[in-house]
Amino acid sequence: MFVYADNAATTSVSKTALDAMLPFLTESYGNPSSLYAFGQKAAEALQEARETVAHFINADPREIYFTSGGSEADNQAIVSAARLGARKGKKHLISTKFEHHAVLHTLAKLEKEGFEVTLLDVHEDGVVRLEDLEAAIRPDTALVTIMFANNEIGTVQPIAEIGALCREKGIPFHCDAVQAAGHMPIDVKAMNIDMLAMSGHKFHAPKGVGVLYARRGMVLTSIIEGGAQERGKRAGTENVAGIAALAAALKESCEHMEENTAKIIPMRDKLFAELSKIPHSKINGSLEHHVPGTVNMCFEGIEGESLLLMLDDQGICASSGSACTSGSLDPSHVLLAIGLPHEVAHGSLRLSIGEYNTMEEIDHICETVPKVVEYLRGMSPVWDELQKGERPHLI
Amino acid sequence: MFVYADNAATTSVSKTALDAMLPFLTESYGNPSSLYAFGQKAAEALQEARETVAHFINADPREIYFTSGGSEADNQAIVSAARLGARKGKKHLISTKFEHHAVLHTLAKLEKEGFEVTLLDVHEDGVVRLEDLEAAIRPDTALVTIMFANNEIGTVQPIAEIGALCREKGIPFHCDAVQAAGHMPIDVKAMNIDMLAMSGHKFHAPKGVGVLYARRGMVLTSIIEGGAQERGKRAGTENVAGIAALAAALKESCEHMEENTAKIIPMRDKLFAELSKIPHSKINGSLEHHVPGTVNMCFEGIEGESLLLMLDDQGICASSGSACTSGSLDPSHVLLAIGLPHEVAHGSLRLSIGEYNTMEEIDHICETVPKVVEYLRGMSPVWDELQKGERPHLI
Repeated sequence: MFVYADNAATTSVSKTALDAMLPFLTESYGNPSSLYAFGQKAAEALQEARETVAHFINADPREIYFTSGGSEADNQAIVSAARLGARKGKKHLISTKFEHHAVLHTLAKLEKEGFEVTLLDVHEDGVVRLEDLEAAIRPDTALVTIMFANNEIGTVQPIAEIGALCREKGIPFHCDAVQAAGHMPIDVKAMNIDMLAMSGHKFHAPKGVGVLYARRGMVLTSIIEGGAQERGKRAGTENVAGIAALAAALKESCEHMEENTAKIIPMRDKLFAELSKIPHSKINGSLEHHVPGTVNMCFEGIEGESLLLMLDDQGICASSGSACTSGSLDPSHVLLAIGLPHEVAHGSLRLSIGEYNTMEEIDHICETVPKVVEYLRGMSPVWDELQKGERPHLI
Repeated sequence: MFVYADNAATTSVSKTALDAMLPFLTESYGNPSSLYAFGQKAAEALQEARETVAHFINADPREIYFTSGGSEADNQAIVSAARLGARKGKKHLISTKFEHHAVLHTLAKLEKEGFEVTLLDVHEDGVVRLEDLEAAIRPDTALVTIMFANNEIGTVQPIAEIGALCREKGIPFHCDAVQAAGHMPIDVKAMNIDMLAMSGHKFHAPKGVGVLYARRGMVLTSIIEGGAQERGKRAGTENVAGIAALAAALKESCEHMEENTAKIIPMRDKLFAELSKIPHSKINGSLEHHVPGTVNMCFEGIEGESLLLMLDDQGICASSGSACTSGSLDPSHVLLAIGLPHEVAHGSLRLSIGEYNTMEEIDHICETVPKVVEYLRGMSPVWDELQKGERPHLI
């Protein structure tokens, strides 16, 4: 049995998305910047996509900028707010310790340029406290950037409350919504979000296309200079096919959100219930504030990487954390941020499921993971020491 | 009759390119950064694409970085060289007056940061002189960036000679090869090119994917921070389908280059020959140093935009210059750079043909353009003045 349980890393391209892009990969190949009618067909597709995306996050089409993905959108949002802030003498940026590296590395770059960065704790439950944010805000704070849902542990942040606080204080608020878009309702107006990033391939559009929403009034800095595309804020001939697919996929995901969620939650809950029976296991992050499909657990005494490889042998695609950092030997910065010791963080497993998964697949995972954990523990010197009482259990 | 004659703006996606991308838009949707075999299939496709691209420009696969397009690649190359130069106290950048805006606007941004930029003349023939370059080089020159072939007038620069001079002087040389890749032979080793940008959609791959070649030893600065993709130099989940298509399209274009060129040249020559019969017309740029498919001419006394709209009515897709600047009321910076007066530059027409065009289509263009020019001149007050001798002919 083949089970794809890594939807937080990427999703399959839906038939709807593929159908939306195919015309632009075949007959309608015009450049949207061209004057002639054939090119204007592509321009109309862009406009339609902009309206669709805007609609589903309650924005204005003129506030939607298409990018090459979530990382680019995060980079541009943060750099824009920093440049804007610097012009007003504000060089303090606030974020959290468990953001995606697209955010953290951009902040680190700005830090080298002389910006000051405060990274908020996310506590054991993986949720930012509003009072921590309030305490961190300074007169020179130029930006608050906090993710909607964490990509590794799936915890959801109090976005509306954060937005309200930032609006009250007059500080731009950027939200990396890559894991939430298409999976949870987003309303940039109600949530007072000034900028927001999404990535098509997390909701069944192809890889290589994303969105930056920027509220009117936000001054964007280009990170790719050149032609006047995207109202002069993002140069380069537009990925028309990808953009059409992104809009179609977002529409489909949003229109089926309730029914998808209703399908996913029982599968996710079964995973939590069954895998929690494994002794010395731990669920990472609050279940109360959670995206529908993400399960993140640690199993003491094993290496996450070995677990993944053995699950792969059993046809199960899963990850230990972010795909973007796989290959790295360091434990997840997210798991460290929620207070796990290194030894425990190393034994992590992320299963992220979607509406295309079935309960049979979940059963397969629930049967396989305990066996593999047991097998790996049987070979683990650490587990041996834990069993003999030579070292204390940490979970 | 529908005639697409704007291949310098964008090209149709070839069947080969579409076939190469479809598996990654359907069954093989894994994230290439994932550990499991299903993700590794995507990683293998990336590696294969990297090898293909490297092969056709005589580079090493480790020197190939995939980007979202030519603009991003140009931006990253120039910013990288500037940052590297600045660390050594070198803050002088050399380019030409008729580069693409992806280059010129990036240089302008760096100028605001304190870099000094010298833009070389390109003379009436649209070709840079080596002696001008040599004279401009200073001890603090950090970069020479000169395009392979101009996107509006199609003139080809003495790239190998420029490369040799830069190598001799120890100055990094970046080449915007967006208009040349897939259409002319490129050998980064023989031509001493240190960095090079290409854009898939100019050679029958889809929009939204490009390549930055950077010779080993060149230190790249990320312009998109985040995950460790592209050896840590370009974050964001890779556009696997687009990259596979780009490699397939480049292979096809390069393998059929001679036969395509042999097909295109007589069509282009016929356009030049027939359209030159229009009185007070002018061919822009040297024909001696020229990409196969681009024809750029000016017709006195008319507005390029009106010409395009009337050609569109006759089924002919053409442009007045770069698609990236269409909508702008300013005359082309390229035509001004080769010394055309404003009034003449306004009446420009770019026809860019490819191997999919036919001689019947060319005949249609050759019949239509003179009629439309005549019609527009009949309504033009400027032409009236020219006819009455109230103002002198400029061409």
